Amino acid sequence: MEKKKVLVTYNMWRDGYAELMQKYDVTFPPEGAESFTYDEVLGMIPDYDALQSMFNFPVDKRLMDAAPKLKIISNYAVGYDNIDVAYATQKGIQVTNTPDPVTEPTADLAMGLLLATFRRISELDRRLRTPGSVKVELLTNLGHSLYGATLGIIGMGRIGQALARRAVAAGMKIVYHNRHRLDEATERRYGAVYLSLDELLRVSDAVSLNAPHTAETYHVIGAEELHKMKPTAVLVNTARGPLVDEAALAEALRTGTIWAAGLDVFEHGNYPILELTRLDNVVLTPHVGTQTVEIRHEMAAHVSRNIIHFFEGGHIDKVNLL
Amino acid sequence: MEKKKVLVTYNMWRDGYAELMQKYDVTFPPEGAESFTYDEVLGMIPDYDALQSMFNFPVDKRLMDAAPKLKIISNYAVGYDNIDVAYATQKGIQVTNTPDPVTEPTADLAMGLLLATFRRISELDRRLRTPGSVKVELLTNLGHSLYGATLGIIGMGRIGQALARRAVAAGMKIVYHNRHRLDEATERRYGAVYLSLDELLRVSDAVSLNAPHTAETYHVIGAEELHKMKPTAVLVNTARGPLVDEAALAEALRTGTIWAAGLDVFEHGNYPILELTRLDNVVLTPHVGTQTVEIRHEMAAHVSRNIIHFFEGGHIDKVNLL
Repeated sequence: MEKKKVLVTYNMWRDGYAELMQKYDVTFPPEGAESFTYDEVLGMIPDYDALQSMFNFPVDKRLMDAAPKLKIISNYAVGYDNIDVAYATQKGIQVTNTPDPVTEPTADLAMGLLLATFRRISELDRRLRTPGSVKVELLTNLGHSLYGATLGIIGMGRIGQALARRAVAAGMKIVYHNRHRLDEATERRYGAVYLSLDELLRVSDAVSLNAPHTAETYHVIGAEELHKMKPTAVLVNTARGPLVDEAALAEALRTGTIWAAGLDVFEHGNYPILELTRLDNVVLTPHVGTQTVEIRHEMAAHVSRNIIHFFEGGHIDKVNLL
Repeated sequence: MEKKKVLVTYNMWRDGYAELMQKYDVTFPPEGAESFTYDEVLGMIPDYDALQSMFNFPVDKRLMDAAPKLKIISNYAVGYDNIDVAYATQKGIQVTNTPDPVTEPTADLAMGLLLATFRRISELDRRLRTPGSVKVELLTNLGHSLYGATLGIIGMGRIGQALARRAVAAGMKIVYHNRHRLDEATERRYGAVYLSLDELLRVSDAVSLNAPHTAETYHVIGAEELHKMKPTAVLVNTARGPLVDEAALAEALRTGTIWAAGLDVFEHGNYPILELTRLDNVVLTPHVGTQTVEIRHEMAAHVSRNIIHFFEGGHIDKVNLL
């Protein structure tokens, strides 16, 4: 029997693909190229049984119509805005994602940004690098304590709950807002109290965004919401940039409406608006929620396993129910 | 009956001292002065029943000999290297410290430095502030995952255990080295494995120093120990500067002997050696382990309570057993 053909759109480290490469005929972009272009994939796809798409690679009707043999699209991400899932379902093509590997590293980054803002770690690190710009006295360089403070989590799914677990270990109280209230056992695990968005904003010392980007969550934090927050509160966003009105946030940070912010995602692409980069009370990271060496290996193994299990049986992370 | 007289060496916020000021006659340094000088205290001390000393204020034989009424020295810190405790004991003067309030904020800072180094938070924040200096691609800006990594804690007292609690919540495995092995129940709480220092250095992905500064712990991490660590490992020091040979550490960070370091304390006073401030793989904070607004209030209440309970009955945090 001829080996199944798998097309990988992005040039990843090969380690995580070992089993896939042993079983199937796997095509990666040529050495030196970061990824295949859309047109290259469009030309090759008629021959392939499986596609491993990167989160920013568009898998649209045109591509699927050119792929008579395609049975599975294994997306390298938890999100899948890049795929026309409805059309895939209509054509009987399975779509899978990678929810497991992203949970813990994203929750770690959220916790890291929370600690960095509460305790001013990045600001003080920057200032210590300019000799003479930091005074060390008992009432200088003061941050805020996590212990006893209230963390408001907007979006209490896997990542929100993984963050809650870390925050509880640091002595924080958990409140949350979610489309659906969690069951009692899950609430009890974190001592989590369900609140309306308004109440959450008013009582929280830190607000973390862990919700997907939908029409409902677009600008869920804007000027009005920032004014409902405490002047000592911090905002952390490791979810999606458009959840926050970035210009309104920069203004709130500049004027002391809130105390600080930690942002891994930005409203307009990969970079923050310039005004944010000039503020001391913000910590900025370039969308590194899952950027660890270990997760790169784990996600490659995960997208591979979704393809192998699809063809040979076993659990797969289904996005569309077929 | 005349009110007891309490001398406070440092000009702190008054909030935490409310009860003390209501009960006793409390003297603070004059407005605008940071603290009393040693000579000022020496001149005033004959009249005082209690002294609230700051951690860097020397309480020596000469001062105690000038204080016939002095019954208690309530030190504002967990450490008490500033006090001649043996002589105080000989003179029947009670010495107290503040172990409780410092535990959680110091463990938070250790966790913050661990996350900042593992995930390169401060380095990436710095680079995002210089437009064009960060590329956002799938295999750039990679850090390391905490989940499944091994944290080696040197000094498994209150702070070490508070750090272990946070690290376990992030999915880390705990190994530790301590003067005395912990009891089985405590080990089980953190799944902590007792190792020799050598073994700990070899197996840990992160090493955190949480031991006091003694003759035994001086330079517990030097060139030799750094070479035993993994090239992917990080070192975190929130304890005392002299535990680390700072020049050897800077060399190890420059040459890639270890991956990164997070330092809140420095070998030679308040500031790091210049070479450290030029490295990207180090996160530096200016001894802010307990520098939070909430802890400043809490510690003031705590030193006050030690004095009130000493005179009126109740628990005090004894340094010397009288």
